Amino acid sequence: MRPPAVLAIHGGAGPAPADRPSGLSARQSAALGEALNAGLAVLAAGGPALEAVVAAVSLMEDAEEWNAGRGSALTAAGTVEMDAAVADGRRRLIGAVACVTGVRHPVAAARAVLEDGRHVVLAGPGAEAFARAGGLPFEPEDWFVIDRRRRDLARCLPVAPGESGVAEPAGVPDGPGGGGTVGAVARDATGHLAAATSTGGRTGQLPGRIGDSPIPGAGTWADDGTCAVSATGVGEAFLRAAFAHEVDARVRLGGADLATACREALAAVTAAGGDGGCIALSGQGRPVLPFTTALMHRGWAEVGGPSWVGAGPGAMERIG
Amino acid sequence: MRPPAVLAIHGGAGPAPADRPSGLSARQSAALGEALNAGLAVLAAGGPALEAVVAAVSLMEDAEEWNAGRGSALTAAGTVEMDAAVADGRRRLIGAVACVTGVRHPVAAARAVLEDGRHVVLAGPGAEAFARAGGLPFEPEDWFVIDRRRRDLARCLPVAPGESGVAEPAGVPDGPGGGGTVGAVARDATGHLAAATSTGGRTGQLPGRIGDSPIPGAGTWADDGTCAVSATGVGEAFLRAAFAHEVDARVRLGGADLATACREALAAVTAAGGDGGCIALSGQGRPVLPFTTALMHRGWAEVGGPSWVGAGPGAMERIG
Repeated sequence: MRPPAVLAIHGGAGPAPADRPSGLSARQSAALGEALNAGLAVLAAGGPALEAVVAAVSLMEDAEEWNAGRGSALTAAGTVEMDAAVADGRRRLIGAVACVTGVRHPVAAARAVLEDGRHVVLAGPGAEAFARAGGLPFEPEDWFVIDRRRRDLARCLPVAPGESGVAEPAGVPDGPGGGGTVGAVARDATGHLAAATSTGGRTGQLPGRIGDSPIPGAGTWADDGTCAVSATGVGEAFLRAAFAHEVDARVRLGGADLATACREALAAVTAAGGDGGCIALSGQGRPVLPFTTALMHRGWAEVGGPSWVGAGPGAMERIG
Repeated sequence: MRPPAVLAIHGGAGPAPADRPSGLSARQSAALGEALNAGLAVLAAGGPALEAVVAAVSLMEDAEEWNAGRGSALTAAGTVEMDAAVADGRRRLIGAVACVTGVRHPVAAARAVLEDGRHVVLAGPGAEAFARAGGLPFEPEDWFVIDRRRRDLARCLPVAPGESGVAEPAGVPDGPGGGGTVGAVARDATGHLAAATSTGGRTGQLPGRIGDSPIPGAGTWADDGTCAVSATGVGEAFLRAAFAHEVDARVRLGGADLATACREALAAVTAAGGDGGCIALSGQGRPVLPFTTALMHRGWAEVGGPSWVGAGPGAMERIG
């Protein structure tokens, strides 16, 4: 029997909304379905896992439901600063961009860094110049900013921007039910793994803050021999736990199964002062989607099989 | 018997100069001795490991011999972009800054990020604003640039700056015998560990490039229960190997002794396309200083004992 081509995605982890304790909104459900379909189309055509995760995440960057690309959270200064990474389990390569503005698809810029091969992480104006030189599409900053994120920031700040040089709050995770960081992990028909993560960071974060999403081994990791991982949650705690590489190490060195490895690595995140979740795929294509928050927006599908989406801890919903 | 208070430092790994295949220059030797003394003074007074590594690295940032602070390598655009991280093994906290200019002691800014606690990594102008708000000393950009680094860049570039938007070379490691990235690991009299790393990056690197030094789990890591690690070498390969956390994981999950863990993790770096080395301390204060390059500028000392420095693979030299 041929091993399965599988895709799993997430749209962030966080608290549950009071009026919707266990479910996705209709728009979130539809947006997860579209992202799954985009990635599945690549896998069904025999395309590589790396291309599938970039396709799924690119679509989620364009969707306003999530905190990535258009719809990104705003910094304390009211600006958009986006981070993204991609990891190729076949070649054990990673590429990432951090603190970029204007790049329509930060995940595509991260992939360009990976393929270029000279560097692994590029940040700020240097990363933007690199993406521009590579012909990647740009949008004006206003294109990324949506009203909901302006309201999030207004709720977050104790002082209005301009009243103090640097706003005090360190940033809040996405509010109840609000879509968060996005990510995808895939196993293609030839058995190769890939992972991608993209985020707008935390509402009210200090300008220049880099979370776990673009950091190799923290928010994003892939190695054909062990697993592919994309994380979401309180990025600082995931960084302190070296989360994604900890999952890999617990499988590879500790002999744990992937679900146990994820649970133990999430316990380290809790000990480091944060919560969240991840999507992970084993080398055999088994998806594991654990979280320590009330919900994690997520979906998974196998080529030729049904698609599943969900948010709360209960059973996921079949959507196709 | 009281366990030892120990400090180890490095000043980068790289090829050996033709005229000095196994040794340190007199200035490098003296600079290593001064940095050891600065850290030892903290430890001898009963100060914490975290303060000792910051003291040692701050002195190396000021010394022109190394590629950190004053004397940093120049980007392809001829600019100074510095990265640093500190890790506190007692609290399992990390702080880092990336792509900063003007901050006299990037390692002090990294420590301020750690102590502030809101974020783990701050980059670019946001990191500089944070450091300035914290009252850290700044210097004009010219203060950081030394003639030797201008010559390094001129040798590195196939085209003069201005002839092309982005210079082609991805950056070269430090030339033969040239001092590189700096770092320190320490164990204090109460048994706590800390690590710090600081770098100017690679000569000719693309602006915005972030190497392994400031990345939690790549170039810098500390956990009282396992080890403290500061790495140096081809940063991209250390990032792809999640090097410092890999050392930690091989000790903690794989049951390896620290020397074996470092050797195996350096083999993963080699497989990822780079070379380099690290300084590491076990929880018991045993120093391990391995490298896969021809030399690594390094030193170590125990409070109340002699100080040792060296560069090549042979025996280290007693300097005090």
